[in-house]
Amino acid sequence: MATIDPGSVLADLRELARLTSDERGAQRVAWTRRWEDAREWFRERASDLPVSEHLDTAGNQWLTLPGTSGRSLLIGSHLDSVPDGGWLDGALGVLAGLAVLRRIAGEGTPPCTVRVVSWADEEGARFGGSLFGSSAAAGTLDVEAARAWRDAEGRPVAEVVAEHGVVLEQMPEARVELEDVAAYLELHIEQGPVLEERELALGVVEGTFGVERRLLRFRGQSAHAGSTPMHRRHDALLAAARTALRVRELAIAEGGVGTTGRVVTSPGIVTAIAGEVEMTLDLRHLDDGALARMLEGAVSEAAAAAAEEGCTVEVEPVWGIHPLPFNDTLKGFADEAVAEVQGETFRLPSGPLHDAAEMALYGIPTAMLFCQSLRGLSHTREEDTRPEHLTMAVQALDHLARRTLTWIAAG
Amino acid sequence: MATIDPGSVLADLRELARLTSDERGAQRVAWTRRWEDAREWFRERASDLPVSEHLDTAGNQWLTLPGTSGRSLLIGSHLDSVPDGGWLDGALGVLAGLAVLRRIAGEGTPPCTVRVVSWADEEGARFGGSLFGSSAAAGTLDVEAARAWRDAEGRPVAEVVAEHGVVLEQMPEARVELEDVAAYLELHIEQGPVLEERELALGVVEGTFGVERRLLRFRGQSAHAGSTPMHRRHDALLAAARTALRVRELAIAEGGVGTTGRVVTSPGIVTAIAGEVEMTLDLRHLDDGALARMLEGAVSEAAAAAAEEGCTVEVEPVWGIHPLPFNDTLKGFADEAVAEVQGETFRLPSGPLHDAAEMALYGIPTAMLFCQSLRGLSHTREEDTRPEHLTMAVQALDHLARRTLTWIAAG
Repeated sequence: MATIDPGSVLADLRELARLTSDERGAQRVAWTRRWEDAREWFRERASDLPVSEHLDTAGNQWLTLPGTSGRSLLIGSHLDSVPDGGWLDGALGVLAGLAVLRRIAGEGTPPCTVRVVSWADEEGARFGGSLFGSSAAAGTLDVEAARAWRDAEGRPVAEVVAEHGVVLEQMPEARVELEDVAAYLELHIEQGPVLEERELALGVVEGTFGVERRLLRFRGQSAHAGSTPMHRRHDALLAAARTALRVRELAIAEGGVGTTGRVVTSPGIVTAIAGEVEMTLDLRHLDDGALARMLEGAVSEAAAAAAEEGCTVEVEPVWGIHPLPFNDTLKGFADEAVAEVQGETFRLPSGPLHDAAEMALYGIPTAMLFCQSLRGLSHTREEDTRPEHLTMAVQALDHLARRTLTWIAAG
Repeated sequence: MATIDPGSVLADLRELARLTSDERGAQRVAWTRRWEDAREWFRERASDLPVSEHLDTAGNQWLTLPGTSGRSLLIGSHLDSVPDGGWLDGALGVLAGLAVLRRIAGEGTPPCTVRVVSWADEEGARFGGSLFGSSAAAGTLDVEAARAWRDAEGRPVAEVVAEHGVVLEQMPEARVELEDVAAYLELHIEQGPVLEERELALGVVEGTFGVERRLLRFRGQSAHAGSTPMHRRHDALLAAARTALRVRELAIAEGGVGTTGRVVTSPGIVTAIAGEVEMTLDLRHLDDGALARMLEGAVSEAAAAAAEEGCTVEVEPVWGIHPLPFNDTLKGFADEAVAEVQGETFRLPSGPLHDAAEMALYGIPTAMLFCQSLRGLSHTREEDTRPEHLTMAVQALDHLARRTLTWIAAG
């Protein structure tokens, strides 16, 4: 039996960082020259293996090791980064997948087909649409809506992707790639502080959080800061302040997260009471019912805070997605794989979205492993993980792949 | 004995509004053509009286009715407005002063000289420097600092005032006008809701609030809204929110006012915890000690709120002025005058600054009357006061002038 070589993954990650980063961090933004460089380099890195390589109609890059059965195990993540990003976000999962593929290829023809995918444009950094390639394959991409996307320079998405061989309207045809996929696995850095706080290298992801986003628009009465007594005020900022504090309490009570990240005051001057305040609301939870309670609570607390301050509040919809729990059987395998490497397992939800969510949404049994992020940092060049933790992560993914392959082969 | 004619003041106010307003409100911004039109019209309105008229070196406009003694009673306010301003702010005091002057002139040579001044550029709407003309006369204008002022089009103040016959460097020579002034009286609309709430037409101003302005800069840690558990956050917005609510409590406890009118979040996006928040602080009180306690309390509450949220706060100075109580003897006369007209008197502080503050600062015994503002509105074309309240205000100013003249004559 061949063994996995985690050292090759670390070497690959460092080489990719050297080729596609600058002093401000990783620059592998999708649909750019450096992203193409990364894909070309990845193609070369797999060229010694008995695998075929191709791009699908959505720009996703596939490596396929044919097995006795056409049913396939798929391991994936993404090579694209945000601007000034980290070296591990996405790349770890793709290159660990390549190492697993190499280990399996070293053992001869596998019982099932094994594939590695590098999804196109997970970050949505240029056009704002996250999970672009995987959502196209999963059939959740709204091509009509996407046609309106433009980058910061005003270039339409269709024109830009065409430069990379992709026809926007044909992106959903990538669905054909998923026909024989029996299981999807993804390894990713946590991008949060939970594993570090628990002094764990690895965790098993329960699923991705559901998200509810709203814009809260508080309206009071702007008035002179000097001539308006305190009891005569209708201060929209104080209504927003009370709401922000209550949203935190709600999130704690329900075991989710709640964030009020953007506040805009109007008229926004030192000598006037804020007559109008806009505040964003972002609520996340792994449980649909708890998420609904958080949203209902936040809306009613905002209304109560507004009323207490003699103001009104309007709640405008922004965006939402349901929670997506991963596959119980595969999470069980993942627990075993993690326990084999670090002695114990640990489950945690994923706050950020991942391509794995699109696979789960499509109906493919899916599991994800998280690897510790130092100080929880990501989307910055300071993003990092200890080499020994990266090694453990590659080993755990390999154990998980082994178990999953056996499961698929057993039908 | 001649009697005052409040009806002439209402007629004058309406005529001035007609001449110098448009559909958006009063447009008598200082150092503009319409302000000159207002001054020219005011000169004409006084031309039938045995008074001399002149502009001083600061652009203030003076009417002088010589009396037996050179010691003078001065009544003043301002004809300039903010852009899109109200019809009464400033103009009421000047035109009521003219009516008082007309009444006194009708009685023959007064025992003391009586003067009316229309201060130049009380609002500071074009160059940002409030009380421009009165501060020049009172000797508190920093000419060096003023030299740097420019309007929105980038024109230096010296160039603009020169078009109106004023040499910036010579503005402080207006001080000569104040040499024989024994008392200063000003009638102004309240620009706040206090008198309306108490169903009073008139009030006596205790003095102008002292003001302390600061910029609070809260620093926490920006992080992903999805992947950062609630207990691991350093949310600068929540520190600012707690501070805003505590500032209100402090202001209520001390009987002053406290406003946090401008909040800026950074990075200021829906998916990130606010890592940095700027919030303005504006505290006002009539009592120096109470103002100092409010400031000390606000700074310490901000530090406590920051610490509770795992953040830090820096407090940057912005601007401040001490409270300026008016003259007790004249306030007593004002109480009598107000009681004579409305049956009872009422004292209230002034949140906004007024030219009267410069006179008090100069050392001239000063008193101010406030007249009710409907809905507390000012600096908008919706600014208004009931005609019967305007009539009462003119009568009260006349009574106050009568008492003050007797007091000056008695030495």
